[in-house]
Amino acid sequence: MNKLRIGIAGLGTVAQGVLQLVKTNGSLMSRRTGVELIVQRIASRSAKPGVDLLGAVFSTDVHDLVADPDVDVILELIGGEGLAKDLIESALAANKPVVTANKAVIAGYGDQLLAQGNAPLRFEAAVAGAIPIIQSLNQGLAANRIDAIYGIINGTCNYMLTVMEEEGLAFDQVLSQAQELGYAEADPAFDIDGIDAAHKLTILAALGFGTSYDFSALYVEGITQITAEDIQYAKELGFKIKHLGIAMHTDAGLETRVHPALVPSTALLASVNGVMNAVQVVSDAAGETLFSGPGAGGAATASAVLADVLSLGTSGLIGSARALESKGRSLNQAQAAGTAPAMHRLAMDDIRSACYLRIPTVDRPGVFAQVASALSAHSISIEAVIQKEQPLEDASVSIVILTDVVVESVVNAALTELAALDTVVGKITRIRVAPTH
Amino acid sequence: MNKLRIGIAGLGTVAQGVLQLVKTNGSLMSRRTGVELIVQRIASRSAKPGVDLLGAVFSTDVHDLVADPDVDVILELIGGEGLAKDLIESALAANKPVVTANKAVIAGYGDQLLAQGNAPLRFEAAVAGAIPIIQSLNQGLAANRIDAIYGIINGTCNYMLTVMEEEGLAFDQVLSQAQELGYAEADPAFDIDGIDAAHKLTILAALGFGTSYDFSALYVEGITQITAEDIQYAKELGFKIKHLGIAMHTDAGLETRVHPALVPSTALLASVNGVMNAVQVVSDAAGETLFSGPGAGGAATASAVLADVLSLGTSGLIGSARALESKGRSLNQAQAAGTAPAMHRLAMDDIRSACYLRIPTVDRPGVFAQVASALSAHSISIEAVIQKEQPLEDASVSIVILTDVVVESVVNAALTELAALDTVVGKITRIRVAPTH
Repeated sequence: MNKLRIGIAGLGTVAQGVLQLVKTNGSLMSRRTGVELIVQRIASRSAKPGVDLLGAVFSTDVHDLVADPDVDVILELIGGEGLAKDLIESALAANKPVVTANKAVIAGYGDQLLAQGNAPLRFEAAVAGAIPIIQSLNQGLAANRIDAIYGIINGTCNYMLTVMEEEGLAFDQVLSQAQELGYAEADPAFDIDGIDAAHKLTILAALGFGTSYDFSALYVEGITQITAEDIQYAKELGFKIKHLGIAMHTDAGLETRVHPALVPSTALLASVNGVMNAVQVVSDAAGETLFSGPGAGGAATASAVLADVLSLGTSGLIGSARALESKGRSLNQAQAAGTAPAMHRLAMDDIRSACYLRIPTVDRPGVFAQVASALSAHSISIEAVIQKEQPLEDASVSIVILTDVVVESVVNAALTELAALDTVVGKITRIRVAPTH
Repeated sequence: MNKLRIGIAGLGTVAQGVLQLVKTNGSLMSRRTGVELIVQRIASRSAKPGVDLLGAVFSTDVHDLVADPDVDVILELIGGEGLAKDLIESALAANKPVVTANKAVIAGYGDQLLAQGNAPLRFEAAVAGAIPIIQSLNQGLAANRIDAIYGIINGTCNYMLTVMEEEGLAFDQVLSQAQELGYAEADPAFDIDGIDAAHKLTILAALGFGTSYDFSALYVEGITQITAEDIQYAKELGFKIKHLGIAMHTDAGLETRVHPALVPSTALLASVNGVMNAVQVVSDAAGETLFSGPGAGGAATASAVLADVLSLGTSGLIGSARALESKGRSLNQAQAAGTAPAMHRLAMDDIRSACYLRIPTVDRPGVFAQVASALSAHSISIEAVIQKEQPLEDASVSIVILTDVVVESVVNAALTELAALDTVVGKITRIRVAPTH
């Protein structure tokens, strides 16, 4: 039996999930993997009475985990960027392997941390909770050229869009409801503005395409503009609206973008509902593979954290069977090097997609012709139209148009022109259609 | 760079897929994993003119792969049971790691092969093609107690059921169509009778629940009894019919069964269509995770084969960075030992499920009351009923009943009694409802 002594930083939901899981399934894990997990030390600002520490030494200083020679691997589960990043850096500098669930730190500093590492750094739990998507990209699909990654990677957004669809409720109503149920934070901006999804997509893009961990290079749009009306119109057109992280490589370059998207109702992604996450990967040999599961929660995240820990334990990189001193670094470097040569990142203006446009206009004959001719002037073809007879409360009507595939800059120019028409009486909603392979 | 010299047995579709993938993506794999794959030797009964062997030595005797000291790992891609099993045995006896796509050999002899092995034996490609489900069970979900595995693991069955549903065609028509398209073999029994799915479920059950690789312990039923009518009735009741492999642990014991099943239309599994495969895993921490992708095909299977090869290459178990002589064996042994203590396998008579029953009866008043009272006599509750007015061609009518959850032996007794009624004029169809968690 390979004994592996873990040190846990933090004592929040995920850390408690890890403790609970080691307690419940520790002997199962040993039988399955040959690795016996021992919780050696726990460090947190304050103790949590009632939480079973499984006999671990308790400190209030997380750096004690680095200093303790009896800790083989550090689990960074404190979250945030300052102290967490500092802890990861000092652990790696001291040759201590690190497992983290911290998407913000990896999305922001992944290149630097993976390059400086003298020990393995693992972060399965940072993307899509319990789903072993990082392992699948690094190992399960290792023989493939990755062409595209589409992810429903924010549970709050997916929950809200699902409830808006199923119950026909307005955004604000569903947000309040999600907050009451604990599916949305009191300050929901991080989720509903797409930041959280963008952190995760940064990581997926780096792993899939070998690009840098550069959060700032992504186009990011949240779901705050989506109305129940849009969801209904999309349904009539044969689509569901999902908040997607998209990383896709075409001959033109690499696209990395987070925004709501129309997904064909028949696509498997369209059936991923509620707080569930899913990542679809399109690759040359494996074709379309999809991985779904709970994207958050203490137990689900702990499952991913411990998958990393056990994988390190069986790798022979650490613990009592430690064998290959330099192996962690070389693997990190391979991951950091990725699929270089570096790919050209496409500017958002240059991406191509079909678009759903909802245009609020006055209810008057000739308006549709005016809109159609404005689009035609930009050589934008119309694939489908919905125009309902009855006006909305403010006496306006919605013209809904599904365009052919168009370059973003062209759509932007057309939208500017449409907005300037005196018959257009409100903000035009544009939702891109998810690419298909 | 860790050089890994592979020896390939067989030169069929999968072997050609491997060669093609090494040729196309070899340098990508090296950058990503630090492992350089070299095709050292290929052995096949006969050469295939026009296939690029990538400079490998060619033999007609697969045992040359074992004897060649320059072969680090053997890829068994010949299929069948005799020679393939023989090759795997002699390779492991000679301390050569083996990667195989051979579900029949693993389902039949997995215990013996994993126990005797002096070297690692990997078989990701044996289940669900490109989907990294074995890796996900062994590693991604390693911290979890597995409660249930539901798999759509035969592409032929799923394709046929999908087309029957979408086009309302009869079984025989769709079978001919599938054969023309190459989605079904000339002799389709292996797929449509459920044997292939049972091979795969044997492997999934062994990995998830630590049971023996005992193909003969499974209950197996194919899709030949399913009619377009059943699919339509199921739809009215809110279900789709899928051919499932189910391995599930309850307090009563372990169930391992392969049969058509009613899946709620809203479930993600219900949206897995055509030749796609999917495996849903229910576990205590990760909850419901689902993995889908192409279940067959040269490139997809090659993707899984090479995932195993690259994983061995990065593990330090083999190749020029070989480090841990005994590691392969200990890991195999851990896998073989699984989650012992051994689980009690439930006899099929003792499983519990809700059932769809389609009962062909004469078109006469009082027949439904007769059927209902027969069920009631066995304490079987009725959840839903469909009875259409118009008789079928043979002047019979179908009574369709959805029962509550009942023990299999009770349903069997009731079916025997119903079949004996003189108002029942044809074979009764019973389709179990998939369990829910």
